[in-house]
Amino acid sequence: MYTAPVLIAGEWCQAAESGRFHPVNPSTREQLSQAYPVSSWHDCDTALDAAVLAAEQLNACPASARAQFLEHFADLIEADAKSICALAAEETGLPIHPRLLEVELPRTTNQLRQAARAAADGSWARATIDTSANIRSIHRAIGPVVIFGPNNFPLAFNGVSGGDFAAAIAAGNPVIAKAHSAHPGTSQLLARLAHQALQASGLPTSTIQVLYATSRADGLKLVSDPRTGAVAFTGSRSAGLTLKQAADEVGTPIYVELSSINPVIMLAGALRENSAALAEEFANSCLMGTGQFCTSPGLLILPEGADTTVFMQHSADLFDSKPIGTLLSEDTEANLRQTTQELIASGAKVLTKNLNCDPARFCRPNTLLAITGKEFLLQANRYQAEAFGNTALIVVSKSTEETCQIINSLEGNLTGSIYSAIDSSDDTDYNQVEPILRARVGRLLNDKMPTGVAISPAMNHGGPFPASGHPGFTAVGIPASLIRFSKLHCYDNVRNNRLPALLQDDNPTGAWRLINEEWSQSAL
Amino acid sequence: MYTAPVLIAGEWCQAAESGRFHPVNPSTREQLSQAYPVSSWHDCDTALDAAVLAAEQLNACPASARAQFLEHFADLIEADAKSICALAAEETGLPIHPRLLEVELPRTTNQLRQAARAAADGSWARATIDTSANIRSIHRAIGPVVIFGPNNFPLAFNGVSGGDFAAAIAAGNPVIAKAHSAHPGTSQLLARLAHQALQASGLPTSTIQVLYATSRADGLKLVSDPRTGAVAFTGSRSAGLTLKQAADEVGTPIYVELSSINPVIMLAGALRENSAALAEEFANSCLMGTGQFCTSPGLLILPEGADTTVFMQHSADLFDSKPIGTLLSEDTEANLRQTTQELIASGAKVLTKNLNCDPARFCRPNTLLAITGKEFLLQANRYQAEAFGNTALIVVSKSTEETCQIINSLEGNLTGSIYSAIDSSDDTDYNQVEPILRARVGRLLNDKMPTGVAISPAMNHGGPFPASGHPGFTAVGIPASLIRFSKLHCYDNVRNNRLPALLQDDNPTGAWRLINEEWSQSAL
Repeated sequence: MYTAPVLIAGEWCQAAESGRFHPVNPSTREQLSQAYPVSSWHDCDTALDAAVLAAEQLNACPASARAQFLEHFADLIEADAKSICALAAEETGLPIHPRLLEVELPRTTNQLRQAARAAADGSWARATIDTSANIRSIHRAIGPVVIFGPNNFPLAFNGVSGGDFAAAIAAGNPVIAKAHSAHPGTSQLLARLAHQALQASGLPTSTIQVLYATSRADGLKLVSDPRTGAVAFTGSRSAGLTLKQAADEVGTPIYVELSSINPVIMLAGALRENSAALAEEFANSCLMGTGQFCTSPGLLILPEGADTTVFMQHSADLFDSKPIGTLLSEDTEANLRQTTQELIASGAKVLTKNLNCDPARFCRPNTLLAITGKEFLLQANRYQAEAFGNTALIVVSKSTEETCQIINSLEGNLTGSIYSAIDSSDDTDYNQVEPILRARVGRLLNDKMPTGVAISPAMNHGGPFPASGHPGFTAVGIPASLIRFSKLHCYDNVRNNRLPALLQDDNPTGAWRLINEEWSQSAL
Repeated sequence: MYTAPVLIAGEWCQAAESGRFHPVNPSTREQLSQAYPVSSWHDCDTALDAAVLAAEQLNACPASARAQFLEHFADLIEADAKSICALAAEETGLPIHPRLLEVELPRTTNQLRQAARAAADGSWARATIDTSANIRSIHRAIGPVVIFGPNNFPLAFNGVSGGDFAAAIAAGNPVIAKAHSAHPGTSQLLARLAHQALQASGLPTSTIQVLYATSRADGLKLVSDPRTGAVAFTGSRSAGLTLKQAADEVGTPIYVELSSINPVIMLAGALRENSAALAEEFANSCLMGTGQFCTSPGLLILPEGADTTVFMQHSADLFDSKPIGTLLSEDTEANLRQTTQELIASGAKVLTKNLNCDPARFCRPNTLLAITGKEFLLQANRYQAEAFGNTALIVVSKSTEETCQIINSLEGNLTGSIYSAIDSSDDTDYNQVEPILRARVGRLLNDKMPTGVAISPAMNHGGPFPASGHPGFTAVGIPASLIRFSKLHCYDNVRNNRLPALLQDDNPTGAWRLINEEWSQSAL
């Protein structure tokens, strides 16, 4: 049986394979029939050469061509929405309705279209002009971008259709997508549509290349190859840190999104005002997507007291009564079982009663654990270990001071949320807690669960280490997410006709440019 | 004899020393009388704790206080200009006139004042607001910034007064300056003035701390300590890469500026038009500061031919006739002797005749070497090794294609310059050469030598690895250089009165903010 083709140098072709694998349907635990190749270094090498050439050619293509490609790709995805979601459901166990078809797919096309507008507009590149010194600078494409997509968002974070992809292309780079091996068919289908749009676009056909899997060693070689311009990785901490080390060593920018427990703090007044609704909100957020969001709240800190006791019982009941979702893979299931067990072995009490779940699919029971703040602080590292999936941990704190200590013991996270009373009764506590939380998270929320990363220009999907590799960048949000895949180019006394379009005196697209320290859309 | 005090936790105090050293006067080769301490880890540890506290306190200080501090510090430097420059001359061998007093000191105070304006203004922080989603984000101080200053700019790049210092403070961070051990007295004098301005400012007195030296192991510990927010290093490649590895491992942003040969390409028409003037320009730039600028042109590529032969002879004569400057240290002298010898051993011809120089001071003869393009390409790595100081290498290329190959063999550099005819006779060659050079440099120049890094908002003092550690950042230029020392903070649904000033609806300072994708200085 042939393995599915890879997309290299503008052609669908048989991989130079060093092995093969089958994806699995998480809803049935059964292997799917199509085999996919593990690419050997030969594929990576060919792809890198092709990407370098594509990068040079892309330099000469107008930004409008990239914009048109992204729009067209979004159109093709929409036209094929049902097939894409059916296949994604089969490979990930995620429900078609509403998750894939009504939420994730529109998010994906929205991102592509926002990226198209950003490419056409040009403001993302921060053109900066100093007229008196005749020095001008701008952010420009960095070169081939290698994207390792995660398993939890087969469309919106896919290396061949998601946010990193959109940002890299919009910024003028070719992409080599290392599709996640858990959903290779979905990736292939998206790649076929991307390739179709590419061929219609006039862009170099090697602008997008797709592999399904490589060996660990070849992954490291790929990220540290001199032809690679930048790397984006979303996934497990251990894999991400290994790749990061390899890229760091050769000075290749790498953006990793590794892990987050997204602490939520509910202050006493908030609980007093609204405990029942907050318990619903909490349970829904924890269990959304079976807890498999990078922004799932894994840690909830509550103040000791009667309201909390009621909240905990109510939440446990909700966990027990809500449906048990399907986990993405056997590894996800095994890891969740293990990390949950470790939390219990460390001393966490199990609040939920339901210990069983459907053996026919990858799943674990919705599990709510609890620990006192004192116990948490004695083993802070163990208790903040991410249990990726439908397990969450409540920490019952005896005082605001103790809450501050608990937050202080946390690593960097993507998000932190504080619920406080609508009246001002929690304000003193908020002011104590907020600065400590603020320093540890990329995004601070009030009165909101962290799941739901709006594709807003003001979004920060990033945060202090180890949530991400550099706290100054966001992976979501346009145009800000584009800057990661760029380098700063200064032109000193360069003759006008030799300048890139966005640095010339005229400004036909009306891009925002910083001219003599004033932002303007005008010509010079 | 006591060693000079260090500045830790707001106090001048005796170091917890693990050793001591004396700076040397490069003009006499003699040790200076004052001894300085090598700080043990205890000093670093105390400084880090104090910096963490200062960072928290700085968060509550208005930006205007930082601005006032920076202005006042600039005033104090100007008032003490003669003493500062006399001491700097004694420790570095750099001339008081015009270099230190008329060029570098004004550059230093200019930088501090520009940073003051940037701090007060707030536009640097890129406040971004999405009103419909009520999501707001902004760049904010990252935490204690450890700065390792280089030896070649005792004022303008000094960890306690230079560009990194100004940017870090303006962005709201405390600074721990690891002053360069070659000019500790200059650093101490500047630090005394900084401390004086600090005490008058109302800012936390631990905002600035200064050590003169640490062991190599403690330097690594310092950059990888969890209390360190970010690191800036300018200096040798080997030291910088070692520090980078340590900081990268713990996810601490580190900005390194390591080495650059700043290739200059003169095309045939430019030489034909202007050979004599270009030879002067070249010689002056190479020998400026005895070739000890990060932007000194170490490599000049010329087209084979009669004009080039004349140019080379003329340049050699200029190198032989111009004064021989003093090198910064014994190490600089030894390294320059060695790297020059290695170039000659590899096959470079010596064009200059003068082989001697004053034994009473650190110096080497002005040395101009030459090689053919063919020979360069056979040992490209050896021939592009940086010879820091008054040695330069001319490569005579037989064709534009060969010139392209030579540039293609170069590592990342800070700058690249192309001289071309004023008439259009070099345009075809320029268009062949430019893209290859452009991809390898942070700043591209036309008809200009690279020495002279204008403190312009549009400057890029940075470039692809290994010129710097990340090609998206500049170390010079305000406000752009501030962003390195910041992290992105997003506020999602956060109540208005809890937002930082620059994200509130009002905009009293008129900072530029990106509101619903439009830059504006208005209130919401």
